[in-house]
Amino acid sequence: VSLVPSGVVTLLTDFGTRDPYVGVMKGVILRLFPAAQIVDLTHDIAPQDVREGRFWLERSFPFFPRGTVHVAVVDPGVGTVRRAIVVEASDHLFVGPDNGLLAGVARKGEARSIDPSLVRENPSRTFHGRDVFAPVAARMGLAMLPVAEVGPALERGSLVELPPSEPTDDPDCGVVVTVDRFGNLLTSIEATRALAGGLIEIEGRSFPLRGTYGEAAVGEIVGLVGSFGVLEIALRDGDAAAALGLGKGARVRIARE
Amino acid sequence: VSLVPSGVVTLLTDFGTRDPYVGVMKGVILRLFPAAQIVDLTHDIAPQDVREGRFWLERSFPFFPRGTVHVAVVDPGVGTVRRAIVVEASDHLFVGPDNGLLAGVARKGEARSIDPSLVRENPSRTFHGRDVFAPVAARMGLAMLPVAEVGPALERGSLVELPPSEPTDDPDCGVVVTVDRFGNLLTSIEATRALAGGLIEIEGRSFPLRGTYGEAAVGEIVGLVGSFGVLEIALRDGDAAAALGLGKGARVRIARE
Amino acid sequence: VSLVPSGVVTLLTDFGTRDPYVGVMKGVILRLFPAAQIVDLTHDIAPQDVREGRFWLERSFPFFPRGTVHVAVVDPGVGTVRRAIVVEASDHLFVGPDNGLLAGVARKGEARSIDPSLVRENPSRTFHGRDVFAPVAARMGLAMLPVAEVGPALERGSLVELPPSEPTDDPDCGVVVTVDRFGNLLTSIEATRALAGGLIEIEGRSFPLRGTYGEAAVGEIVGLVGSFGVLEIALRDGDAAAALGLGKGARVRIARE
Repeated sequence: VSLVPSGVVTLLTDFGTRDPYVGVMKGVILRLFPAAQIVDLTHDIAPQDVREGRFWLERSFPFFPRGTVHVAVVDPGVGTVRRAIVVEASDHLFVGPDNGLLAGVARKGEARSIDPSLVRENPSRTFHGRDVFAPVAARMGLAMLPVAEVGPALERGSLVELPPSEPTDDPDCGVVVTVDRFGNLLTSIEATRALAGGLIEIEGRSFPLRGTYGEAAVGEIVGLVGSFGVLEIALRDGDAAAALGLGKGARVRIARE
Repeated sequence: VSLVPSGVVTLLTDFGTRDPYVGVMKGVILRLFPAAQIVDLTHDIAPQDVREGRFWLERSFPFFPRGTVHVAVVDPGVGTVRRAIVVEASDHLFVGPDNGLLAGVARKGEARSIDPSLVRENPSRTFHGRDVFAPVAARMGLAMLPVAEVGPALERGSLVELPPSEPTDDPDCGVVVTVDRFGNLLTSIEATRALAGGLIEIEGRSFPLRGTYGEAAVGEIVGLVGSFGVLEIALRDGDAAAALGLGKGARVRIARE
Repeated sequence: VSLVPSGVVTLLTDFGTRDPYVGVMKGVILRLFPAAQIVDLTHDIAPQDVREGRFWLERSFPFFPRGTVHVAVVDPGVGTVRRAIVVEASDHLFVGPDNGLLAGVARKGEARSIDPSLVRENPSRTFHGRDVFAPVAARMGLAMLPVAEVGPALERGSLVELPPSEPTDDPDCGVVVTVDRFGNLLTSIEATRALAGGLIEIEGRSFPLRGTYGEAAVGEIVGLVGSFGVLEIALRDGDAAAALGLGKGARVRIARE
C-alpha cells in the first residue's frame, strides 16, 4: 500500500528569510501543486550546518500529518557531484541532498536517487532548492509522482553519513547540537537516558538533572528532558548559553551518581 | 447563535522563527485541521513580554475575518499551575495562557478554562503552544469543538490581569508599549485622546502633535495617530527610538495647550 | 482574453516580520478572499530601498504561477500624493506605489491608477499596504475585480522611474543591488553579458569570471552567473561582501580580456 500524501510540504533550509529564496521555492511548488499547504519549519539553520539541520528535521517531522513531504536543503556541496535523494520513512517523505542531512530519517526507511529527468531543465548550479528539490516535492505531494518512480533505490548503507560528533558511542555522551532562541542548549543525548537522574556534565562542569523546568530554582542551571525528546541544559528565567559561555559542539555527558 | 469559524488560525508568540517551534505548532494544527489557513501575526514578541503581546493581539485581531481563532503564547509560567483558557469576544476566538495576555480581549467577551481532556496526552512541561493551545485551536477552527465544550466558564473578573503600567488611570497618560521596526514608539494612549491637538510629552520632553506624518518636517519628532489607533511618537524619515534614546516603558502624556 | 487568477498572492515589503504589520495585511486579504494562497517573497527589503525591492520583484515573479497577484510595498512616500497603481505584465498582476518599484515589470505591460473607491474607507496615512494595496490585491486575486475596472489606464512613460544607478548605459557596467544572506553581491549586470568570460571589476579590483561556483577554488573571489540571471560576486565557502568590505551601490563592470 502506498503512502497517501497529506498535501502538506514543509521546508527546512539555511537560506534565511531576508532574500526571496524561500519565496521562489514556494512559487515553484505552487505552479505544480496549487493547493499545497506549505509550512516553514525553519530557514535559520546555521549556514551549511548539516548536523543542526538533521537534528531539527528528525525531531520535528513526527508532529506533521502522515504523508507530508519534507524538503530539507542545507547543502554545502550544491553544484558538485553529490546526489539528490528522496527518502520514505515512518510514513513521511523527505527530499534533499545526500550529505548526511537525511541520514537520520533514512535509517528507518528507504532512499532513492532522484532521476535527472524530473528536475528543471538547465537547473542552476547553486539553487537546487528551487530547481531540483521543490519540483520533486511538489509532484510527490500532489501524488502525481509515486515514490517508486523518483529514481533507482539506493542500497542501505550507501547514503552519506555525517562523521560522529563524539569519539565514543556511549549513549550517555553527546554534544550540544543547537542553541535555541531562549539560550537553551539542546544536546544529542536521548531524553530516555536522563530518566535515572544524576548530574549533567558540560565541558567539565556539573549541574543537577531535574524532572521539570518548574523544579529548578530561578537562576539555577539544570539538565532537563526537553519537549523534543532530548536532554537540554537550561537556566531558569535566563539564557544558559550566555551564562555558560558555551554553544554548539560543547561536550556533554550524564554522570550517574 | 454560535460563531461560524472562518478557517483562519493566527499565531502570536515570543518563540522567534530561528528554531522550528512555530513550524511544529503548525504541524499539530494541520494534523487535526488540514485545510486551516494559518497566519503568523508575529513570533518576535520580546521574550516573556506579556504586555507587548497583549497589545499587538488586541490591535491586530479586528483585521481578520470573524470566526478566526487566535493562538497567543507568551507564557513565562508554562509548566506551573497557571490556567489555559479560551476567550470568545467580538466574534473572534482566542486561546492562550491565563496570565494577562488575553485580558484585554476578554473584557468584551467570555472566558473558559480548557478541560485537560482536550490536550495532548502527556503534554510537555515547556511547550504548551504545541501540546495544549494548538490542538484546541485546531479543533475550534474546524468547528469540531463548540466553545461551550472547551471547559467551564470563568467568572468575569477571575482572569489574571497585568499590573497597570502607570500609577494613574488618566487616559492622557501612558507608556511606550512597543517600538516597531522603523523606530516608531507606539504608546498605550488611545488615538482619540490626541484629537484635540496639543503636545506629547515623553520622559519630560515635549513634541508637537501632528495630524499626519506628512505634516511633520523631515527630521522632526512628532506625536501622531498611528495606523493601529494609538498615539505614536515618530521621527520623519528616521528612527525616533534611537534619536530619543528611549524605548519600551518610557512614560508618555498628552499636554493640552 | 483576460488573465485567470492563480489564487496566489505574494507579498514583498520592507516591513520586517518583528511587528504584526504583514500579518494584518494577510488578515485583510483573507477577509475578502478566504482561499488565497499567500506567499511571503521577503519583508526584509532594506527600509525604503525601492531599488532593491524592484530588483527582487522582477527577478522572483517568473517563478510563480501565471495569474499571480504580487503586492509590493516599499513606500517612502506613503501619505503623500504619489499614485497607487496596478500593473498587468507577463501574465502576472502587480500592486503597489508608483515610485519606481513597479517600473521594471511595467515595461512589458500596462499600468492603471487605483480608483479611490476601491480602497478601505478612511485609509490610514501610513499603512497603505493594509488599507489600499491588500484589498485591491485580494479582489483581483478572487477575480472579483477585472484589471480593467481598477482605474484609468496610465500612459506609457508616465510612471515614476528610479534615477539610473550608473552614469552610463553600457550593459557591461552596473552596481551591486543587494547582498544576500551568504554575502554574495548581486549586481545589476545581466548574466548574458558574462558569457564571453573575462574579468569582473568591482571598485577597481579585478576577479576572474568563472562558469560555476564549483570552478572557484576555496577562498577565491569570483564573478559568476547566479541563479537569478544576473552577475554575482561570490567567495567560495565564504562571505564575499565581508571579505571585500563592499556592499550595495559598489560599482561593477565587466572587463573583457
